[in-house]
Amino acid sequence: MNNLHAMINGQLVLEKDAALGINDLSIVRGYGIFDFFKTIESCPVFFQDNLDRFFHSAKIMDLPIPFSRKELTAQIQAIIKINNIPDSGIKLILTGGYSPDAYTIAKPNLIVTQQPLKINHQQQKEGIKLITYDFQRSIPEAKTIDYTMGIKALKSAKEKGADDVVYMSSGVLTECPRANIFIFNKDNELITPAHNVLKGITRKHLLRIGKELFTVKEQIITYQDLEHAKEVFICSTTKDITPVLEIDSIRYGDSPGEHTKALQKAWKEELRKQIQSFTPVS
Amino acid sequence: MNNLHAMINGQLVLEKDAALGINDLSIVRGYGIFDFFKTIESCPVFFQDNLDRFFHSAKIMDLPIPFSRKELTAQIQAIIKINNIPDSGIKLILTGGYSPDAYTIAKPNLIVTQQPLKINHQQQKEGIKLITYDFQRSIPEAKTIDYTMGIKALKSAKEKGADDVVYMSSGVLTECPRANIFIFNKDNELITPAHNVLKGITRKHLLRIGKELFTVKEQIITYQDLEHAKEVFICSTTKDITPVLEIDSIRYGDSPGEHTKALQKAWKEELRKQIQSFTPVS
Repeated sequence: MNNLHAMINGQLVLEKDAALGINDLSIVRGYGIFDFFKTIESCPVFFQDNLDRFFHSAKIMDLPIPFSRKELTAQIQAIIKINNIPDSGIKLILTGGYSPDAYTIAKPNLIVTQQPLKINHQQQKEGIKLITYDFQRSIPEAKTIDYTMGIKALKSAKEKGADDVVYMSSGVLTECPRANIFIFNKDNELITPAHNVLKGITRKHLLRIGKELFTVKEQIITYQDLEHAKEVFICSTTKDITPVLEIDSIRYGDSPGEHTKALQKAWKEELRKQIQSFTPVS
Repeated sequence: MNNLHAMINGQLVLEKDAALGINDLSIVRGYGIFDFFKTIESCPVFFQDNLDRFFHSAKIMDLPIPFSRKELTAQIQAIIKINNIPDSGIKLILTGGYSPDAYTIAKPNLIVTQQPLKINHQQQKEGIKLITYDFQRSIPEAKTIDYTMGIKALKSAKEKGADDVVYMSSGVLTECPRANIFIFNKDNELITPAHNVLKGITRKHLLRIGKELFTVKEQIITYQDLEHAKEVFICSTTKDITPVLEIDSIRYGDSPGEHTKALQKAWKEELRKQIQSFTPVS
Protein backbone atom coordinates (compact mmCIF):
# COMPACT_ATOMS: atom_id res chain seq x y z
CA MET A 1 0.00 0.00 0.00
CA ASN A 2 2.77 2.49 -0.79
CA ASN A 3 0.56 4.45 -3.18
CA LEU A 4 -1.67 5.67 -0.35
CA HIS A 5 -2.40 9.36 -0.26
CA ALA A 6 -2.46 11.67 2.72
CA MET A 7 -3.35 15.33 3.09
CA ILE A 8 -1.07 17.92 4.65
CA ASN A 9 -2.55 21.38 5.15
CA GLY A 10 -5.05 20.74 2.37
CA GLN A 11 -2.48 19.44 -0.10
CA LEU A 12 -2.78 15.89 -1.39
CA VAL A 13 0.54 14.03 -1.13
CA LEU A 14 1.76 10.45 -1.27
CA GLU A 15 1.76 9.22 2.29
CA LYS A 16 5.28 7.85 1.98
CA ASP A 17 6.50 11.37 1.11
CA ALA A 18 4.42 13.15 3.75
CA ALA A 19 6.61 14.80 6.37
CA LEU A 20 6.78 17.61 8.88
CA GLY A 21 9.78 19.87 9.37
CA ILE A 22 11.74 19.09 12.54
CA ASN A 23 10.68 22.36 14.19
CA ASP A 24 7.07 21.26 14.40
CA LEU A 25 5.81 21.46 17.97
CA SER A 26 4.77 17.78 17.89
CA ILE A 27 8.40 16.74 17.34
CA VAL A 28 10.06 19.20 19.73
CA ARG A 29 7.39 19.31 22.46
CA GLY A 30 4.91 16.48 21.82
CA TYR A 31 2.18 19.10 21.36
CA GLY A 32 -0.85 18.24 19.23
CA ILE A 33 -4.30 16.68 19.08
CA PHE A 34 -5.86 14.06 16.85
CA ASP A 35 -9.01 12.12 16.18
CA PHE A 36 -9.75 8.82 14.49
CA PHE A 37 -12.80 7.25 12.91
CA LYS A 38 -13.45 4.30 10.68
CA THR A 39 -15.11 3.75 7.35
CA ILE A 40 -17.02 0.53 6.71
CA GLU A 41 -17.96 -0.15 3.10
CA SER A 42 -16.75 3.40 2.40
CA CYS A 43 -19.20 4.85 4.93
CA PRO A 44 -17.57 7.07 7.59
CA VAL A 45 -19.03 5.87 10.89
CA PHE A 46 -20.02 8.48 13.54
CA PHE A 47 -17.86 10.91 11.60
CA GLN A 48 -19.78 14.02 12.76
CA ASP A 49 -19.16 13.05 16.38
CA ASN A 50 -15.45 12.77 15.68
CA LEU A 51 -15.36 16.15 13.96
CA ASP A 52 -17.16 17.67 16.96
CA ARG A 53 -14.58 16.20 19.31
CA PHE A 54 -11.67 17.24 17.07
CA PHE A 55 -12.81 20.87 17.20
CA HIS A 56 -13.40 20.54 20.96
CA SER A 57 -9.89 19.14 21.58
CA ALA A 58 -8.39 21.90 19.42
CA LYS A 59 -10.16 24.56 21.47
CA ILE A 60 -8.99 23.12 24.79
CA MET A 61 -5.40 22.97 23.54
CA ASP A 62 -5.46 26.49 22.01
CA LEU A 63 -4.87 25.19 18.51
CA PRO A 64 -6.76 27.11 15.82
CA ILE A 65 -7.85 24.68 13.07
CA PRO A 66 -6.77 26.33 9.81
CA PHE A 67 -9.82 25.02 7.89
CA SER A 68 -13.58 25.25 8.30
CA ARG A 69 -15.60 22.17 9.11
CA LYS A 70 -16.82 22.15 5.52
CA GLU A 71 -13.26 22.33 4.13
CA LEU A 72 -12.11 19.57 6.48
CA THR A 73 -15.01 17.38 5.38
CA ALA A 74 -14.09 17.98 1.74
CA GLN A 75 -10.47 16.95 2.45
CA ILE A 76 -11.65 13.73 4.08
CA GLN A 77 -13.96 13.00 1.15
CA ALA A 78 -11.08 13.56 -1.27
CA ILE A 79 -8.88 11.13 0.69
CA ILE A 80 -11.65 8.50 0.76
CA LYS A 81 -12.17 8.87 -2.98
CA ILE A 82 -8.54 8.70 -4.11
CA ASN A 83 -7.41 5.92 -1.75
CA ASN A 84 -10.48 3.76 -2.30
CA ILE A 85 -10.16 1.61 0.85
CA PRO A 86 -13.72 0.59 1.81
CA ASP A 87 -12.83 -0.53 5.36
CA SER A 88 -10.36 1.97 6.74
CA GLY A 89 -9.24 4.09 9.65
CA ILE A 90 -8.97 7.83 9.04
CA LYS A 91 -6.84 9.95 11.31
CA LEU A 92 -6.79 13.72 11.66
CA ILE A 93 -3.75 15.19 13.41
CA LEU A 94 -3.35 18.86 14.32
CA THR A 95 0.06 19.85 15.66
CA GLY A 96 1.41 22.99 17.33
CA GLY A 97 3.04 24.07 14.05
CA TYR A 98 6.47 25.43 13.20
CA SER A 99 7.29 27.27 16.37
CA PRO A 100 9.95 30.01 16.07
CA ASP A 101 11.14 29.45 19.66
CA ALA A 102 10.35 25.71 19.88
CA TYR A 103 7.70 26.45 22.55
CA THR A 104 5.10 28.98 21.41
CA ILE A 105 2.11 27.61 19.48
CA ALA A 106 2.37 28.62 15.80
CA LYS A 107 0.05 28.06 12.82
CA PRO A 108 -0.98 24.41 13.28
CA ASN A 109 -0.18 21.75 10.71
CA LEU A 110 -3.11 19.54 9.76
CA ILE A 111 -2.55 15.96 8.60
CA VAL A 112 -5.21 13.58 7.28
CA THR A 113 -4.21 9.95 6.76
CA GLN A 114 -6.08 6.78 5.83
CA GLN A 115 -5.04 3.18 6.44
CA PRO A 116 -6.73 -0.18 5.94
CA LEU A 117 -8.80 -0.91 9.06
CA LYS A 118 -7.12 -3.22 11.54
CA ILE A 119 -9.60 -4.95 13.83
CA ASN A 120 -8.45 -7.65 16.22
CA HIS A 121 -11.37 -10.05 15.76
CA GLN A 122 -9.74 -12.71 17.93
CA GLN A 123 -9.58 -10.37 20.93
CA GLN A 124 -13.19 -9.30 20.38
CA LYS A 125 -14.23 -12.92 20.38
CA GLU A 126 -11.96 -14.39 23.04
CA GLY A 127 -11.30 -11.45 25.36
CA ILE A 128 -8.18 -9.86 26.78
CA LYS A 129 -6.27 -9.37 30.01
CA LEU A 130 -5.50 -5.98 31.59
CA ILE A 131 -3.45 -4.76 34.52
CA THR A 132 -4.27 -1.63 36.53
CA TYR A 133 -1.69 1.15 36.29
CA ASP A 134 -1.42 4.11 38.63
CA PHE A 135 -1.87 7.19 36.44
CA GLN A 136 -4.27 9.99 35.65
CA ARG A 137 -4.03 11.70 32.25
CA SER A 138 -3.43 15.41 32.78
CA ILE A 139 -5.96 16.76 30.27
CA PRO A 140 -8.35 13.81 29.89
CA GLU A 141 -11.11 15.72 28.09
CA ALA A 142 -8.87 16.53 25.09
CA LYS A 143 -7.66 13.87 22.65
CA THR A 144 -4.02 14.99 22.68
CA ILE A 145 -1.18 13.07 21.04
CA ASP A 146 0.36 12.64 24.50
CA TYR A 147 0.73 8.86 24.91
CA THR A 148 4.05 9.01 26.75
CA MET A 149 2.67 7.02 29.67
CA GLY A 150 0.43 4.73 27.61
CA ILE A 151 3.34 3.48 25.50
CA LYS A 152 5.66 3.15 28.50
CA ALA A 153 2.96 1.34 30.50
CA LEU A 154 2.30 -1.14 27.68
CA LYS A 155 5.76 -2.59 28.36
CA SER A 156 4.76 -3.30 31.99
CA ALA A 157 1.56 -4.96 30.76
CA LYS A 158 3.41 -7.21 28.31
CA GLU A 159 5.93 -8.19 30.97
CA LYS A 160 3.02 -9.38 33.12
CA GLY A 161 1.41 -11.29 30.27
CA ALA A 162 -1.38 -8.72 29.83
CA ASP A 163 -2.59 -7.04 26.64
CA ASP A 164 -2.75 -3.50 27.98
CA VAL A 165 -3.27 -1.38 31.08
CA VAL A 166 -6.24 0.40 32.58
CA TYR A 167 -5.45 3.61 34.46
CA MET A 168 -6.40 3.92 38.10
CA SER A 169 -5.78 6.81 40.47
CA SER A 170 -6.32 6.66 44.26
CA GLY A 171 -8.27 3.43 43.83
CA VAL A 172 -10.61 4.92 41.21
CA LEU A 173 -10.69 3.51 37.70
CA THR A 174 -10.70 5.84 34.70
CA GLU A 175 -9.85 4.52 31.23
CA CYS A 176 -7.41 2.54 29.13
CA PRO A 177 -4.84 4.55 27.15
CA ARG A 178 -6.82 3.97 23.93
CA ALA A 179 -10.24 2.77 25.11
CA ASN A 180 -13.04 3.36 27.60
CA ILE A 181 -13.99 0.72 30.14
CA PHE A 182 -17.43 -0.59 31.19
CA ILE A 183 -18.46 -3.08 33.85
CA PHE A 184 -21.62 -5.06 34.56
CA ASN A 185 -22.14 -5.11 38.33
CA LYS A 186 -23.85 -7.89 40.27
CA ASP A 187 -27.22 -6.18 39.71
CA ASN A 188 -26.60 -6.41 35.96
CA GLU A 189 -26.22 -2.64 35.65
CA LEU A 190 -23.94 -1.33 32.89
CA ILE A 191 -21.51 1.23 34.36
CA THR A 192 -18.71 3.36 32.97
CA PRO A 193 -16.57 6.03 34.72
CA ALA A 194 -18.15 9.49 34.57
CA HIS A 195 -15.13 11.71 35.20
CA ASN A 196 -11.49 12.25 34.21
CA VAL A 197 -11.78 10.21 31.00
CA LEU A 198 -11.73 10.96 27.30
CA LYS A 199 -15.33 10.59 26.29
CA GLY A 200 -15.06 8.13 23.43
CA ILE A 201 -17.48 8.11 20.51
CA THR A 202 -18.06 4.35 20.89
CA ARG A 203 -18.65 4.99 24.62
CA LYS A 204 -21.23 7.67 23.76
CA HIS A 205 -23.25 5.44 21.45
CA LEU A 206 -22.95 2.40 23.73
CA LEU A 207 -24.48 4.46 26.56
CA ARG A 208 -27.41 5.17 24.21
CA ILE A 209 -27.83 1.64 22.85
CA GLY A 210 -27.13 -0.01 26.19
CA LYS A 211 -30.22 1.65 27.67
CA GLU A 212 -32.44 -0.54 25.52
CA LEU A 213 -31.06 -3.63 27.24
CA PHE A 214 -29.79 -2.63 30.69
CA THR A 215 -29.87 -0.02 33.42
CA VAL A 216 -27.00 2.24 32.43
CA LYS A 217 -24.98 4.50 34.75
CA GLU A 218 -22.07 6.89 34.45
CA GLN A 219 -20.43 6.93 37.87
CA ILE A 220 -17.24 6.28 39.82
CA ILE A 221 -15.84 2.74 39.53
CA THR A 222 -13.50 1.70 42.34
CA TYR A 223 -11.12 -1.23 42.52
CA GLN A 224 -13.67 -2.87 44.85
CA ASP A 225 -16.30 -2.49 42.12
CA LEU A 226 -13.93 -4.28 39.75
CA GLU A 227 -13.55 -7.11 42.26
CA HIS A 228 -17.32 -7.52 42.47
CA ALA A 229 -18.12 -7.01 38.79
CA LYS A 230 -19.73 -9.79 36.76
CA GLU A 231 -18.35 -8.76 33.40
CA VAL A 232 -15.94 -6.13 32.07
CA PHE A 233 -15.24 -4.87 28.57
CA ILE A 234 -13.42 -2.02 26.86
CA CYS A 235 -14.51 -0.15 23.75
CA SER A 236 -13.09 2.05 21.03
CA THR A 237 -13.37 2.62 17.29
CA THR A 238 -11.05 -0.28 16.49
CA LYS A 239 -11.81 -2.42 19.54
CA ASP A 240 -15.62 -2.09 19.23
CA ILE A 241 -16.60 -4.13 22.30
CA THR A 242 -13.64 -6.18 23.49
CA PRO A 243 -14.35 -8.41 26.52
CA VAL A 244 -11.94 -8.34 29.46
CA LEU A 245 -11.47 -11.71 31.15
CA GLU A 246 -8.87 -10.71 33.72
CA ILE A 247 -7.66 -7.57 35.51
CA ASP A 248 -4.62 -8.04 37.77
CA SER A 249 -5.61 -11.26 39.58
CA ILE A 250 -9.38 -10.71 39.26
CA ARG A 251 -10.92 -13.20 36.83
CA TYR A 252 -14.26 -12.81 35.04
CA GLY A 253 -14.55 -16.33 33.66
CA ASP A 254 -12.90 -18.25 30.85
CA SER A 255 -14.93 -16.71 28.05
CA PRO A 256 -16.88 -13.49 27.41
CA GLY A 257 -20.07 -13.14 29.46
CA GLU A 258 -23.65 -13.15 28.23
CA HIS A 259 -24.32 -9.44 28.75
CA THR A 260 -21.19 -8.45 26.87
CA LYS A 261 -22.11 -10.77 24.02
CA ALA A 262 -25.64 -9.33 23.88
CA LEU A 263 -24.17 -5.84 23.67
CA GLN A 264 -21.72 -6.94 20.97
CA LYS A 265 -24.70 -8.16 18.93
CA ALA A 266 -26.57 -4.87 19.44
CA TRP A 267 -23.44 -2.92 18.49
CA LYS A 268 -23.02 -4.88 15.27
CA GLU A 269 -26.62 -4.07 14.38
CA GLU A 270 -26.04 -0.40 15.20
CA LEU A 271 -23.01 -0.24 12.90
CA ARG A 272 -25.08 -1.90 10.15
CA LYS A 273 -27.80 0.73 10.68
CA GLN A 274 -25.24 3.53 10.42
CA ILE A 275 -23.94 2.17 7.14
CA GLN A 276 -27.41 1.70 5.67
CA SER A 277 -28.55 5.20 6.62
CA PHE A 278 -25.41 6.91 5.28
CA THR A 279 -25.94 9.20 2.31
CA PRO A 280 -22.66 10.01 0.62
CA VAL A 281 -22.20 13.66 -0.30
CA SER A 282 -21.41 13.75 -4.00
CA MET B 1 20.26 31.74 9.16
CA ASN B 2 18.63 29.54 6.53
CA ASN B 3 21.92 27.84 5.66
CA LEU B 4 22.11 26.13 9.05
CA HIS B 5 22.81 22.43 9.03
CA ALA B 6 21.20 19.73 11.12
CA MET B 7 21.86 16.02 11.44
CA ILE B 8 19.22 13.33 10.99
CA ASN B 9 20.30 9.77 11.77
CA GLY B 10 23.92 10.69 11.13
CA GLN B 11 23.25 12.45 7.81
CA LEU B 12 24.09 16.12 7.46
CA VAL B 13 21.17 18.07 5.96
CA LEU B 14 20.12 21.69 5.64
CA GLU B 15 17.94 22.40 8.65
CA LYS B 16 15.24 23.98 6.51
CA ASP B 17 14.92 20.68 4.60
CA ALA B 18 15.12 18.44 7.70
CA ALA B 19 11.88 16.55 8.24
CA LEU B 20 10.40 13.42 9.75
CA GLY B 21 7.78 11.27 8.04
CA ILE B 22 4.31 11.68 9.51
CA ASN B 23 4.35 8.17 11.00
CA ASP B 24 7.07 9.06 13.45
CA LEU B 25 5.98 8.31 17.02
CA SER B 26 6.70 11.91 18.08
CA ILE B 27 4.05 13.18 15.64
CA VAL B 28 1.41 10.51 16.21
CA ARG B 29 1.96 9.89 19.96
CA GLY B 30 4.20 12.65 21.30
CA TYR B 31 6.80 10.01 22.18
CA GLY B 32 10.45 11.03 22.39
CA ILE B 33 13.25 12.45 24.52
CA PHE B 34 15.70 15.27 24.05
CA ASP B 35 18.55 17.12 25.63
CA PHE B 36 19.99 20.59 25.19
CA PHE B 37 23.31 22.22 25.95
CA LYS B 38 25.03 25.42 24.96
CA THR B 39 28.31 26.33 23.38
CA ILE B 40 30.08 29.51 24.43
CA GLU B 41 32.93 30.65 22.21
CA SER B 42 32.53 27.27 20.45
CA CYS B 43 33.08 25.39 23.72
CA PRO B 44 30.28 22.90 24.56
CA VAL B 45 29.46 23.57 28.22
CA PHE B 46 28.80 20.58 30.53
CA PHE B 47 28.33 18.53 27.38
CA GLN B 48 29.33 15.22 28.99
CA ASP B 49 26.63 15.71 31.65
CA ASN B 50 24.04 16.26 28.94
CA LEU B 51 25.16 13.15 27.05
CA ASP B 52 24.90 11.16 30.30
CA ARG B 53 21.35 12.40 30.84
CA PHE B 54 20.38 11.81 27.19
CA PHE B 55 21.41 8.15 27.48
CA HIS B 56 19.65 7.93 30.86
CA SER B 57 16.38 9.37 29.47
CA ALA B 58 16.57 7.03 26.48
CA LYS B 59 16.91 4.05 28.80
CA ILE B 60 13.94 5.05 30.95
CA MET B 61 11.78 5.53 27.84
CA ASP B 62 12.90 2.26 26.20
CA LEU B 63 14.44 4.05 23.22
CA PRO B 64 17.64 2.43 21.94
CA ILE B 65 20.03 5.16 20.72
CA PRO B 66 21.16 4.04 17.26
CA PHE B 67 24.68 5.46 17.73
CA SER B 68 27.47 5.00 20.24
CA ARG B 69 28.49 7.85 22.51
CA LYS B 70 31.58 8.32 20.36
CA GLU B 71 29.55 8.50 17.14
CA LEU B 72 27.11 10.95 18.70
CA THR B 73 30.01 13.13 19.85
CA ALA B 74 31.44 13.09 16.33
CA GLN B 75 28.06 14.18 14.91
CA ILE B 76 27.90 17.09 17.34
CA GLN B 77 31.46 18.10 16.49
CA ALA B 78 30.58 18.01 12.78
CA ILE B 79 27.55 20.25 13.38
CA ILE B 80 29.62 22.71 15.43
CA LYS B 81 32.27 22.85 12.71
CA ILE B 82 29.99 23.33 9.70
CA ASN B 83 27.58 25.82 11.29
CA ASN B 84 30.29 27.88 12.97
CA ILE B 85 28.07 29.58 15.59
CA PRO B 86 30.32 30.28 18.59
CA ASP B 87 27.46 30.96 21.04
CA SER B 88 24.77 28.40 20.33
CA GLY B 89 22.23 25.95 21.68
CA ILE B 90 22.55 22.36 20.54
CA LYS B 91 19.57 20.04 20.79
CA LEU B 92 19.51 16.26 20.51
CA ILE B 93 16.09 14.70 19.90
CA LEU B 94 15.40 10.98 19.89
CA THR B 95 11.90 9.96 18.79
CA GLY B 96 9.99 6.68 18.87
CA GLY B 97 10.67 6.15 15.16
CA TYR B 98 8.46 5.07 12.27
CA SER B 99 6.00 2.85 14.06
CA PRO B 100 4.16 0.30 11.88
CA ASP B 101 1.06 0.43 14.11
CA ALA B 102 1.41 4.05 15.28
CA TYR B 103 1.99 2.83 18.85
CA THR B 104 4.88 0.38 19.12
CA ILE B 105 8.36 1.85 19.53
CA ALA B 106 10.36 1.37 16.33
CA LYS B 107 13.96 2.24 15.41
CA PRO B 108 14.36 5.73 16.89
CA ASN B 109 15.09 8.77 14.74
CA LEU B 110 17.92 10.94 16.02
CA ILE B 111 18.00 14.66 15.27
CA VAL B 112 20.81 17.08 16.12
CA THR B 113 20.17 20.80 15.62
CA GLN B 114 22.07 23.96 16.43
CA GLN B 115 20.70 27.48 16.79
CA PRO B 116 22.23 30.81 17.86
CA LEU B 117 22.01 31.00 21.66
CA LYS B 118 19.09 33.03 22.95
CA ILE B 119 19.65 34.30 26.48
CA ASN B 120 17.18 36.69 28.09
CA HIS B 121 19.70 38.99 29.78
CA GLN B 122 16.98 41.40 30.90
CA GLN B 123 15.18 38.68 32.87
CA GLN B 124 18.47 37.52 34.42
CA LYS B 125 19.15 41.09 35.54
CA GLU B 126 15.67 42.26 36.52
CA GLY B 127 13.90 39.06 37.57
CA ILE B 128 10.62 37.41 36.61
CA LYS B 129 7.20 36.59 38.00
CA LEU B 130 5.80 33.06 38.32
CA ILE B 131 2.47 31.52 39.28
CA THR B 132 2.09 28.12 40.91
CA TYR B 133 0.28 25.53 38.81
CA ASP B 134 -1.19 22.28 40.12
CA PHE B 135 0.60 19.52 38.21
CA GLN B 136 3.14 16.73 38.61
CA ARG B 137 5.03 15.54 35.52
CA SER B 138 4.40 11.84 35.09
CA ILE B 139 8.00 10.73 34.38
CA PRO B 140 10.00 13.58 35.89
CA GLU B 141 13.36 11.82 35.83
CA ALA B 142 13.37 11.54 32.01
CA LYS B 143 13.71 14.56 29.73
CA THR B 144 10.83 13.61 27.44
CA ILE B 145 9.42 15.88 24.73
CA ASP B 146 6.12 15.88 26.64
CA TYR B 147 5.42 19.58 27.27
CA THR B 148 1.64 19.34 26.75
CA MET B 149 0.93 20.84 30.16
CA GLY B 150 3.85 23.27 30.17
CA ILE B 151 2.70 24.94 26.95
CA LYS B 152 -0.94 24.96 28.00
CA ALA B 153 -0.03 26.34 31.44
CA LEU B 154 2.04 29.16 29.93
CA LYS B 155 -1.20 30.68 28.63
CA SER B 156 -2.58 30.83 32.20
CA ALA B 157 0.64 32.48 33.35
CA LYS B 158 0.51 35.14 30.63
CA GLU B 159 -3.13 35.85 31.40
CA LYS B 160 -2.12 36.61 34.98
CA GLY B 161 0.78 38.81 33.93
CA ALA B 162 3.40 36.21 34.87
CA ASP B 163 6.32 34.93 32.82
CA ASP B 164 5.83 31.21 33.49
CA VAL B 165 4.51 28.67 35.96
CA VAL B 166 6.09 26.56 38.67
CA TYR B 167 4.50 23.15 39.24
CA MET B 168 3.12 22.32 42.66
CA SER B 169 1.34 19.16 43.78
CA SER B 170 -0.46 18.76 47.12
CA GLY B 171 1.22 21.92 48.39
CA VAL B 172 4.72 20.68 47.47
CA LEU B 173 6.81 22.57 44.92
CA THR B 174 8.69 20.67 42.21
CA GLU B 175 9.99 22.51 39.14
CA CYS B 176 9.19 24.87 36.31
CA PRO B 177 8.37 23.28 32.92
CA ARG B 178 11.84 24.21 31.63
CA ALA B 179 13.84 25.07 34.75
CA ASN B 180 14.67 24.01 38.30
CA ILE B 181 13.80 26.23 41.23
CA PHE B 182 15.90 27.21 44.29
CA ILE B 183 15.05 29.25 47.36
CA PHE B 184 17.07 30.95 50.06
CA ASN B 185 15.27 30.47 53.38
CA LYS B 186 15.38 32.87 56.32
CA ASP B 187 18.51 31.10 57.62
CA ASN B 188 20.20 31.88 54.29
CA GLU B 189 20.25 28.21 53.31
CA LEU B 190 20.10 27.42 49.59
CA ILE B 191 17.40 24.77 48.97
CA THR B 192 16.05 22.98 45.89
CA PRO B 193 13.41 20.21 45.66
CA ALA B 194 14.93 16.75 46.00
CA HIS B 195 12.21 14.60 44.41
CA ASN B 196 9.91 14.38 41.39
CA VAL B 197 11.93 16.82 39.30
CA LEU B 198 14.11 16.59 36.24
CA LYS B 199 17.62 16.93 37.61
CA GLY B 200 18.96 19.77 35.50
CA ILE B 201 22.63 20.10 34.63
CA THR B 202 22.71 23.73 35.78
CA ARG B 203 21.01 22.55 39.02
CA LYS B 204 23.71 19.90 39.48
CA HIS B 205 26.61 22.33 39.14
CA LEU B 206 24.89 25.03 41.21
CA LEU B 207 24.55 22.53 44.06
CA ARG B 208 28.32 22.02 43.82
CA ILE B 209 29.32 25.68 43.50
CA GLY B 210 26.66 26.88 45.95
CA LYS B 211 28.38 24.88 48.73
CA GLU B 212 31.33 27.24 48.62
CA LEU B 213 29.07 30.13 49.62
CA PHE B 214 26.06 28.73 51.47
CA THR B 215 24.63 25.75 53.32
CA VAL B 216 23.00 23.78 50.51
CA LYS B 217 20.10 21.32 50.86
CA GLU B 218 18.04 19.13 48.58
CA GLN B 219 14.70 18.70 50.31
CA ILE B 220 10.96 19.23 50.09
CA ILE B 221 9.83 22.84 49.53
CA THR B 222 6.24 23.57 50.51
CA TYR B 223 4.08 26.57 49.67
CA GLN B 224 4.69 27.74 53.26
CA ASP B 225 8.45 27.62 52.60
CA LEU B 226 7.85 29.83 49.55
CA GLU B 227 5.94 32.31 51.72
CA HIS B 228 8.82 32.52 54.17
CA ALA B 229 11.67 32.47 51.65
CA LYS B 230 14.03 35.43 51.37
CA GLU B 231 14.96 34.94 47.73
CA VAL B 232 13.93 32.64 44.90
CA PHE B 233 15.48 31.90 41.52
CA ILE B 234 15.16 29.42 38.68
CA CYS B 235 17.96 27.95 36.60
CA SER B 236 18.53 26.22 33.29
CA THR B 237 20.98 26.16 30.39
CA THR B 238 19.45 29.25 28.78
CA LYS B 239 18.16 30.91 31.97
CA ASP B 240 21.43 30.45 33.93
CA ILE B 241 20.31 31.97 37.25
CA THR B 242 17.14 33.99 36.72
CA PRO B 243 15.83 35.73 39.86
CA VAL B 244 12.13 35.36 40.76
CA LEU B 245 10.61 38.49 42.30
CA GLU B 246 7.04 37.27 42.65
CA ILE B 247 5.16 33.97 42.93
CA ASP B 248 1.36 34.27 43.00
CA SER B 249 0.93 37.15 45.48
CA ILE B 250 4.18 36.49 47.38
CA ARG B 251 6.75 39.22 46.70
CA TYR B 252 10.53 38.94 47.20
CA GLY B 253 11.40 42.60 46.78
CA ASP B 254 11.64 44.94 43.81
CA SER B 255 15.00 43.70 42.57
CA PRO B 256 17.10 40.52 42.77
CA GLY B 257 18.46 39.73 46.24
CA GLU B 258 22.08 39.76 47.35
CA HIS B 259 22.49 35.97 47.65
CA THR B 260 21.11 35.40 44.16
CA LYS B 261 23.43 38.05 42.77
CA ALA B 262 26.42 36.49 44.55
CA LEU B 263 25.53 33.12 43.02
CA GLN B 264 25.10 34.69 39.57
CA LYS B 265 28.64 36.05 39.90
CA ALA B 266 30.00 32.65 40.95
CA TRP B 267 28.12 30.99 38.09
CA LYS B 268 29.61 33.40 35.55
CA GLU B 269 33.07 32.55 36.84
CA GLU B 270 32.28 28.83 36.65
CA LEU B 271 31.22 29.14 32.99
CA ARG B 272 34.43 31.06 32.27
CA LYS B 273 36.42 28.27 33.93
CA GLN B 274 34.64 25.64 31.84
CA ILE B 275 35.48 27.51 28.63
CA GLN B 276 39.11 28.01 29.59
CA SER B 277 39.63 24.38 30.51
CA PHE B 278 37.97 23.01 27.39
CA THR B 279 40.24 21.14 25.02
CA PRO B 280 38.63 20.72 21.62
CA VAL B 281 38.99 17.28 20.10
CA SER B 282 40.56 17.74 16.70
